[in-house]
This record gives sequence, structure tokens and C-alpha cells, in this order.
Amino acid sequence: MSIEVGIIMGSDSDLNVMQAAADILKELGVDYELTVVSAHRTPLRMVEYAQKAKSRGLKVIIAGAGGAAHLPGMIASITPLPVIGVPVKSSNSIDGWDSVLSILQMPNGVPVATVALNAAKNAGILAAQIIGTANETVGNNVADYKSNLEKEVLTKVNNLKEKGFENNFD
Amino acid sequence: MSIEVGIIMGSDSDLNVMQAAADILKELGVDYELTVVSAHRTPLRMVEYAQKAKSRGLKVIIAGAGGAAHLPGMIASITPLPVIGVPVKSSNSIDGWDSVLSILQMPNGVPVATVALNAAKNAGILAAQIIGTANETVGNNVADYKSNLEKEVLTKVNNLKEKGFENNFD
Amino acid sequence: MSIEVGIIMGSDSDLNVMQAAADILKELGVDYELTVVSAHRTPLRMVEYAQKAKSRGLKVIIAGAGGAAHLPGMIASITPLPVIGVPVKSSNSIDGWDSVLSILQMPNGVPVATVALNAAKNAGILAAQIIGTANETVGNNVADYKSNLEKEVLTKVNNLKEKGFENNFD
Amino acid sequence: MSIEVGIIMGSDSDLNVMQAAADILKELGVDYELTVVSAHRTPLRMVEYAQKAKSRGLKVIIAGAGGAAHLPGMIASITPLPVIGVPVKSSNSIDGWDSVLSILQMPNGVPVATVALNAAKNAGILAAQIIGTANETVGNNVADYKSNLEKEVLTKVNNLKEKGFENNFD
Amino acid sequence: MSIEVGIIMGSDSDLNVMQAAADILKELGVDYELTVVSAHRTPLRMVEYAQKAKSRGLKVIIAGAGGAAHLPGMIASITPLPVIGVPVKSSNSIDGWDSVLSILQMPNGVPVATVALNAAKNAGILAAQIIGTANETVGNNVADYKSNLEKEVLTKVNNLKEKGFENNFD
Amino acid sequence: MSIEVGIIMGSDSDLNVMQAAADILKELGVDYELTVVSAHRTPLRMVEYAQKAKSRGLKVIIAGAGGAAHLPGMIASITPLPVIGVPVKSSNSIDGWDSVLSILQMPNGVPVATVALNAAKNAGILAAQIIGTANETVGNNVADYKSNLEKEVLTKVNNLKEKGFENNFD
Amino acid sequence: MSIEVGIIMGSDSDLNVMQAAADILKELGVDYELTVVSAHRTPLRMVEYAQKAKSRGLKVIIAGAGGAAHLPGMIASITPLPVIGVPVKSSNSIDGWDSVLSILQMPNGVPVATVALNAAKNAGILAAQIIGTANETVGNNVADYKSNLEKEVLTKVNNLKEKGFENNFD
Amino acid sequence: MSIEVGIIMGSDSDLNVMQAAADILKELGVDYELTVVSAHRTPLRMVEYAQKAKSRGLKVIIAGAGGAAHLPGMIASITPLPVIGVPVKSSNSIDGWDSVLSILQMPNGVPVATVALNAAKNAGILAAQIIGTANETVGNNVADYKSNLEKEVLTKVNNLKEKGFENNFD
Repeated sequence: MSIEVGIIMGSDSDLNVMQAAADILKELGVDYELTVVSAHRTPLRMVEYAQKAKSRGLKVIIAGAGGAAHLPGMIASITPLPVIGVPVKSSNSIDGWDSVLSILQMPNGVPVATVALNAAKNAGILAAQIIGTANETVGNNVADYKSNLEKEVLTKVNNLKEKGFENNFD
Repeated sequence: MSIEVGIIMGSDSDLNVMQAAADILKELGVDYELTVVSAHRTPLRMVEYAQKAKSRGLKVIIAGAGGAAHLPGMIASITPLPVIGVPVKSSNSIDGWDSVLSILQMPNGVPVATVALNAAKNAGILAAQIIGTANETVGNNVADYKSNLEKEVLTKVNNLKEKGFENNFD
Repeated sequence: MSIEVGIIMGSDSDLNVMQAAADILKELGVDYELTVVSAHRTPLRMVEYAQKAKSRGLKVIIAGAGGAAHLPGMIASITPLPVIGVPVKSSNSIDGWDSVLSILQMPNGVPVATVALNAAKNAGILAAQIIGTANETVGNNVADYKSNLEKEVLTKVNNLKEKGFENNFD
Repeated sequence: MSIEVGIIMGSDSDLNVMQAAADILKELGVDYELTVVSAHRTPLRMVEYAQKAKSRGLKVIIAGAGGAAHLPGMIASITPLPVIGVPVKSSNSIDGWDSVLSILQMPNGVPVATVALNAAKNAGILAAQIIGTANETVGNNVADYKSNLEKEVLTKVNNLKEKGFENNFD
Repeated sequence: MSIEVGIIMGSDSDLNVMQAAADILKELGVDYELTVVSAHRTPLRMVEYAQKAKSRGLKVIIAGAGGAAHLPGMIASITPLPVIGVPVKSSNSIDGWDSVLSILQMPNGVPVATVALNAAKNAGILAAQIIGTANETVGNNVADYKSNLEKEVLTKVNNLKEKGFENNFD
Repeated sequence: MSIEVGIIMGSDSDLNVMQAAADILKELGVDYELTVVSAHRTPLRMVEYAQKAKSRGLKVIIAGAGGAAHLPGMIASITPLPVIGVPVKSSNSIDGWDSVLSILQMPNGVPVATVALNAAKNAGILAAQIIGTANETVGNNVADYKSNLEKEVLTKVNNLKEKGFENNFD
Repeated sequence: MSIEVGIIMGSDSDLNVMQAAADILKELGVDYELTVVSAHRTPLRMVEYAQKAKSRGLKVIIAGAGGAAHLPGMIASITPLPVIGVPVKSSNSIDGWDSVLSILQMPNGVPVATVALNAAKNAGILAAQIIGTANETVGNNVADYKSNLEKEVLTKVNNLKEKGFENNFD
Repeated sequence: MSIEVGIIMGSDSDLNVMQAAADILKELGVDYELTVVSAHRTPLRMVEYAQKAKSRGLKVIIAGAGGAAHLPGMIASITPLPVIGVPVKSSNSIDGWDSVLSILQMPNGVPVATVALNAAKNAGILAAQIIGTANETVGNNVADYKSNLEKEVLTKVNNLKEKGFENNFD
């Protein structure tokens, strides 16, 4: 299988957040690449990355950025591929509001699929869901993953029972 | 072509916002359905809609909701399909913040692809981009649409020139 | 006495906040159950919990959740019982605003009785107040509890005096 | 049946919002009283109202207020009855944030059951739900009301169909 | 000189913030008292404190409170004396916004002189300024205090010079 | 009686808000002056106004300003008199937050007694309360004014009764 | 004199805000050009505009944008010239917060000189101040403009006097 | 070369933030001075600093301040020079919002070039960009600095590759 998801971020300092996107994509059987592309420090590299993304075979791009986070929106302005934006709560961020609003509030014509603050894992799942709309294996992997979420919760239900919390429901 | 995108909203009063998703999907050559599904007033209908979505052939769901907007996230909790959430600025909303945060801030495991406040048009484009990852016609339609955005701007450039604003660049 | 209050939360990681609801209910003489019900990871368990709540004899449900907190509102959409929502400040929350607004801003027809951020203790007291509207013993326990609040403050008044802060009032 | 719910507000200018609480209580078969009690302009009247509420037979108090909205919390500090707070978006309010936070963020020991901004109707429903925990007739009225919400949505589903929006689900 | 300023707070846990008001009043030669008065846990004590304040000879009241901070406004609703409110950033506060808005946004007719978040020192200075409008000694003490602020800054100017930062201005 | 309160504002466009301060001062028997002093457009006039305020016999200064509202704080930095700040919601204000925070969040040493957004009337009352700490006539006028607030509310109580809203309390 | 300031905006719908920058530059004797450059719809035009700006003789760029406003920051990432950003409050903006934060919160290395919401006039003045650091004529024009601000205020002082508002200061 | 940039701050406690402005100016070959000027504690020193700035040869002023941050705006009200404002997140700041809004939201006529929260480094770069509009050496230094930003990112690209993250783009 070829690389279908590109994960990019403005700096390697975002890797501690963005790694989760890579991990879950691997778990869901989706091949990805991961590199640094900075909207503000390597604008031409950014343009080239976006311009070549479709012809290189990518189907989805995940872009993480903090503060005045322009990377996801700028990538989305150039490529026709779906772009997922991960607002990263960086050090001088105003509580993450800047990252969220800079990514979310795109104008008509240029959507960015925004996930929660620091939610790189969800960006990976969303990318797999998109791949899964046409790739049955990946689609099934996502469905299995979701089923497992339920099982994990049921384990927690038992954990609470073992701690002595009763309920009449289960 | 079969229906691949389901557009749902909590009330027909959201139609004035959500209509834009339907219109752009039609323009981009994607078949859609549109109906009312309320998380809070028809929770079982919502569950059933989400449970049957994949088997009915849908590939993407667009859900619009305002205030404590639970519809997109709840749909996403049941179906493995990608779900796009449109925060609607409803009448008693606190400036739209409630709609945005209720849709965006989903926990790990259950992403919602959130677009800007009231940005149903972008939700439609994003759905077409997702369909377009596997459907070349739709993918090309999206690419053409994006090219047209550029042309519209160049028309505006000329409009300003005709109003007497000069520039040395063009 | 039978179990009249159900305390539910999306994950056992919320227990450090939600335990306070259980503790105060015990102190006020109200029997409760406590378990994990996740809106986003066990949506069908959530539906079943809400559907059976009244017939199982519950009179009030306390639901705690963080981020895009849908559990209280979704439970309230299914059961006719009063539902108390506790916004939990979870790790990637945007300062708690997401939890608060997702629980508070419910649409007409489906109220959630929202308490302060992380205020599980107050959720327990409120549940006891509701039980106490028909159960005289519990009603008196609440009244006694409130009287004790006053006594605790008067102790603090004396503490300050002993630290050397005078006042002409007491 | 005696009066079980007291609806109070800081000024008769809040009546256009608070009337909805009265209307829905009447619809749900709950007797109520309604008057003006101002925390800031009639503090002693407020104290007396709260002190006598339980002995006068009230079971729930609904208090609406805007801006620095102290009425619900102060009533709750004096009576052991459950108090429902309605944040009202008054003229010089800062987008309603002041009303919401002044009512919601009560300290441990003194809960106020807060509903959405201007959501007096939901306050009325919540009061009926509380009365309904012990009064079967009112409890059934609430259950019927909730069923009707569902029917209204299904009517809207048909409205959209008649406007030409198809779906394969219904 | 008799006690002219009453400093009150909702809990002795606020003393670490409110102590600064006492310290600066002492420095400025104003006699004060300091005690605990809780709006929500000792509402009748609060009423009595406010009712007797003027006749006991107080001229200004400083009230500190956090979260849904009702103490300053409720005191102001009962006494004709000027009331200074100190928003305290308490543990479950939503970043202090609740304290600030609950104190600041008082309705017409009942002002509270609000100072910055946690700014008990400024509350003390403001109280001294009010006393100083009629008491020349205190007024001069305030003027001297302000002059000293300037001298402290000039010391800092020299500190920076000694660290090697030159400027052509001084 | 001499002029004891100076009302200043950044522009005559603020007069529609600030007039209320003048009106209530007149009603409470306090002589005032009113003029335009702009921090940003007449900084030297502002410095001179603040420097001469005390020697001209003023006892309190009320300063209204919007946006990045520096007038109240800068006046307070120069005069030892108490300064009351009125945040004005001007045309390009970000919902009034800029005015409120620019006036409220003064550093230690330089308090501004801040009132609610647009609350010039409360600024006038607060000024009268300050004057009233030493002037018995004005102090009594304030007390009478507060008593009248109560009477106005009781009229509203009757208004609601006449509209058909019963209560068992009055 | 050659064109030294480039005014760009994302759409001609921003012209009603951005015109003010052009007007004041003309008044201050600075030649400008004005055109439409959209970060999201004409990203390559944007890159080219920024790349050629310095060599075409521009000295300052003023860029206005709303919502997820990426234009000023992206221009600043490519050109070494100073870039002034004007946050525009567009129709679906969340009260302007998105525009402000997207422009202001730029990462280290790539500043944007941000002015107030919709403050295109101030952007023009700032551009003239920058030009004026080396161009004495323009610098003097700015100084004269500032002097005139003072005179306008003094006219307003007289207006208030004529309306009957006295003061002892003037 | 003479001193062209004045860096001022309200207190030497801001030096840990503001030092970055000095460092980058040195790196870019711009001479600066640095001292303490407090709007609120040394208002007359502030006025004098602003009045003499231009005649002393300064071309740009960088002013950092926190909370109700009046220093940049007040300096800008007196000098015709461009003023860069650095919002500092001080200890009792409400998440930095107060500093940002107090500096950014200046009225028409008096711009402050605002940079991101705590972004003193960007203030220094912006000052160098302004100097560089007329000083070719400094202009080239800025251009070189920007080129280096790109190189640093490319090093990070390699870092990620060495950690095992592949991509097909480079």
C-alpha cells in the first residue's frame, strides 16, 4: 500500500502532540509520511508540498499548528485534497483560542476539517475514516476500533464495581 | 449515482443555514439526502439514522446544530463514517461559542470534522473532497471549483481598478 | 430505602471529581448507584440507561462529563427524570468553557440542571434537595447541612480573631 | 392543588423572558406564583421570601436575573428548597456571560440548578420534572410533553419532504 | 482614631489574598477591622453586617469573594456606604472571569467599586483615598505613597543601568 | 457648595452614556463639572487636569472611556484622589471586553474604582457615596435614594398582580 | 514620489473598511496602491505579491482580512518588509476574535504589526509613521496630524460648554 | 551608528520577557537603549520620554506592559514616532487578555503596532524592519535572518528523518 496520508507540522516541537496521529494511523493500517512544513518560515516549501500532494498520491493531509495557525488553511487553499487541522496549544498561546480560531474559521470555499485542541489522535482517526470510505479494509479497521472503545468502557464499569461502587443497571 | 452524503439538522429552522451544503454538493455533482434528525427531541431516530448510515450507502454525514450542539458528536459515536459538524449560531446562542465548542471538542476516539460557524457551504465542499479521494469526477469538480475561486478574485481585482484604485503589481 | 439517584460519568478518570457527589449523598441519607456510561463510546448503553432509569426507580440522574460534554443532555433527551449536569474540567478542555457550554446551553424542551465547573458536591446536594421535596427526612438533612455551613463559617470567624484580626461587629 | 413553584425575577422588565416558565408550568399542570423580588433593591424582601418559601408550601423556586445576577444564588443560600436559575441577557450585559457565570459558579454547599441563557421555558420544565418525581400526574405530563417533542420533529421531517428534499431513510 | 474600614471575605481561605488590603491600610494610617462574612453560608450575618455598618462608624467596606461572587454586591444593596469589591481567583474559578463579572456588572442603583483580580492592595489604597477625601492626614499619606511609587521605579531604572543597559534619556 | 466631582470623557460622543452620571449627581445634591479630556489626543491636557484636580477642590473624578480605555487609569496615576472608571462600549469595541479590562486591571499602587459597562449612573452614585462619607446631607440623600429603589420594586410587584399574576407571599 | 505602501485585502467586500487606510495615506502625503490579494483563493498571487514587494519599491504593506485571517501573516512570512495587519470583523466572524487572534499571535521570527479591529485608518497612520522615520515631509505631516487631533478635542470641549456643561478647569 | 530604538517597560520584572527585543536588535545590527518607564508610577517621566524621543534621534519605540497596559498607547499619544506594543502576561493578568486588548484596541488617530503576547523578539524584528525601510544594511540583515529561519526548519526536517519518520516529498 502506498502513502495516503501526509502529516505535517510547523516545528519538530509539535511532535509530542502530533505523534499520536501517526500512531493511530499505523494501528488502523494506513500508510503515512510525516515531516516539518512551516507556513511562516518555509512558505515556498509549504506551497510546493500542497501543490504536489495530490500527484504524489496523497489522499488526506493532516496539519498541526499553534498560535496564529496558518498551515492547515494555507495547505487547503492550494490542494483540492481534504485537509485536517489540529490546533496545537503552544507555549505563548492564549489558552489555545488563537490556534482553534485560526484553523476553524476558514472562509467559504476553503474548508479545513478541524478537530479538538491537541487532538492529533482524532485527526488520525478522521483521516482513516476518509480513506475508509473507499478502502474496505481500513473502513473495517475503523469500525473495529470503535467497537473496542465500547469494550474499554465496559472494563471501566467493572473497575468501579470492584472499587465497591454498586449499580442496579448492569 | 447513489446518495453518498446525508445532510441532517436538528430543526427545519436550521435550513436557512444548511441549504448551502445541499446547493454546493449539487454543483459539485454529489448526490445527497436532507432531513431533520434531532439529538434531543428524537434521540432514537438519531441512533437509527447513524446505525443504518453505512449500510444504506452513505459515505459522509453532514450534521448541523446550534447551542449545546450534540447531533454531530452523537452521530459520530455510532457510525464509523466520517462526520462533518456545522456549528449553527442559533437565537439564544452565546455568540456561537456554545455551538462551536460542543461540536469541536470531541474526546479521543470520536472525531467530528468541524467547520466554521454557519459554514454549511464549506461542509458541502469538504464532503465532496472526501468523496473525491476515490471518485475522480468529483475530485476534478472540486479542483475546478477551487480554480474558479481564483478567477472570481481576479474579477474583483479588476473591479477595484475600475473604481480608480491603481496598483503597480498587475 | 431504594436507590433513587444514579451517578454516571464518561470515564473512570472522572471519578476523582465525581466521588464528591457520592460522598455528600451518603452524608445526606440518599441511596445512589455509580457507574460509567459514555455518550461517545457506549451510545447504546447510554440510551438503555436513560430508557430504564425511571422504571428502575431512579428519581434523579447526575451526569458528569468534560470537553464536548454530551452525556447529561443526551440522557435528558430520553428520560423524563430531572438530570443534573456536572461540567468536568478535563485535560484538553479549553479552560472548562467547552464542558460548561455543552451542558448548559440545551435547547427548549430538554433542560439540564447545570452546576458549577467540577462541582460534583453541589450536584449531590441538589439531587438531595429534589428528593427532599417529597421525602421529609432527606429534606431535613439538607436543612441541617445548610445550618452546619453557617457554623463552619463562625468557626472561621473565630480563627481570624485568634490570628489577631479584630472586628467590632461580633 | 396548592402552589408548588415560585417564579421570581428582579424586575418586571424580565417578564418577557420569564413568562415562558409560567406558561409551560400551566401546560404541565403545576400551580405557580409569580412576583418581583430584587436581590439588590429589595434585599430584605428577598430574605423573607426565601425564609418563608418552604413553610408556605413551595417545593421549587425559579429565579431569573441578568448582569451580576445574585438573586438565584442568594435565594439558594437561605432556603433548603431546590432553586433553578435563569440567566437573563439584559441590556448592558456583556453578551450574557455575566448572567451565566454569576448564577452557575456557586460555591460548594449552595447549588443553583442553572439552565441556558434566557431559557425560562426549560426552567419551568425542570421544575415540573422535580415535582414529578413524587407527583405521578405531573410526571406523566412531562413524559407526554417529551413525546410530543418527537412528534413535532416528525412533522418537520415531512415539511422538508414537501419542500422537495428527499431522503432514503424515512 | 476609630475603625473606618471593614474588610470582609467569604472564607478564611481568601485571607492570603485579602491580607494585602489590611497591610496597606495600616501603612496608610487607616484603622480597619477584618472578619469572615459569607453571602452564601451566612446570609443573615451578611445582612446584619451591612445593616449596622454605617451606625457602627464604618465609612467604607472592602469585600473579597470568588466564583459566583455575591458578597460585595449584596452588601452594597443594603448599606448606603461605598463598597469596594475584590474579585478573588478561587480554585474552581473559570480563570477569574466569574469573580470579575459577578462583582463588576451590578445593575443601576447599586454600584460596587471593583478593582482588578486579586488586587486587595488596590482595594486598600482606594479605601484610603475615600477616607482621604475628608481626612487630610490620610489624604497626605496617600499622596506620599504615590510619590514613593515613582522613587521605586527610579531605583529600577538604576538597576537596569547597573546591569549594563544604557539609555540616552536619563 | 463647591464643585466636588469632575466628570471627564474622551469624546463628546460618550456624552449619551456619561450624561447619566451628571443627572444622578444633581439628583443627589452633588455639584459637578463635566468636560472632554482625551488621554490619547490631549495627553498634556489630561496630565494638567489630573495635577490640578485636588488643588481645585475636586474630591472624586469620574472618567469614562471605550476601547483601549486609558483615561481613568492615567488620571489615577497622577492624582491622589479616588478615580471612578466607566467602561464605555464604543463602536469598534470587541463587545466591551477591551474597555472593561483596560480600566479594571490596574497594577498594584494605582486603583481605579471600576463600575459596570456603560454604568455611568452607578459611577455618579458611587461618587455621591464617597462624598457622603463626610457630608451628612449627601449621605442621607444616598440612603433615601436606596430606599426609593425598594419602593419602585414594590410598585412593580403590584403591576404584576394587576396583570393577573398571583402570589401567596405578599 | 513613488508608491511606497501596498494596501491589500482578501475581497472587495473589505473595501468599506480598508478605504480608510487609503484616505489617510493620501491626506498624509504617502503614495499607495490598493488591490485584492486573497490568501485562500489566490495563494500563488499572494506569494508573488510578497516576493516582488520590496523590489517593486514598496516599503510597507497593509493587509486586511477577516475570520481565519491568514493574509497578513503569510505576506510577512515571505517579504522582509514590515507588514501591518488589520483584523476585519466579517459577517460570520465570532465577534472579531478570530480575525484578531489569527493576525496578532504570530510565531517568533515573523511579526505582524497588528492594529485594532477594523482600524484601517490607524494602519494608514502607522504606515505613514514608518515612512516618516526616513522621510521628513511625511514625518512632519504625521506630527501635524497629531496636533490637529488635539485641536479637534478642544472644539468638543467648547461644544459641551455651549450645551451648558460648566467646568472650572478651562 | 546612533541609538534608533528605545525599549521601555513598566518594571524591571518585565525584563525576562523584554530582553529578547534587545538581543535580536543587537543581532540585526540596530543600536538600542533600554530603560524602565512606568505609565502608572512615573507618568511625568513617561510624558517627557515620549516628548523627547524624536529629537533625541529615536526612530522607533518598543514598549512592553502587562495587565491594564497603558504604556504603549500613552507613548503613542505623545510622539509621532511609530510605537510597537508588547503585551506581557503578568502575574495577575486574566490569561493575557487584559494586556492584549489594552494595547491593541487603540482609537482612531493613535495606532500602536501590537505584536503577540510576550513576543518581544518579534517587536525587535519589527523595529529592525522599520529601520530597514531606509537603512539598507539593516534591511539586508532582516532578509538574511528570514532566510535563516528557513534553514533552521530544514534542519528539523532532517531531525525527523533521523528519528525514522519518512516522507516521499523531500
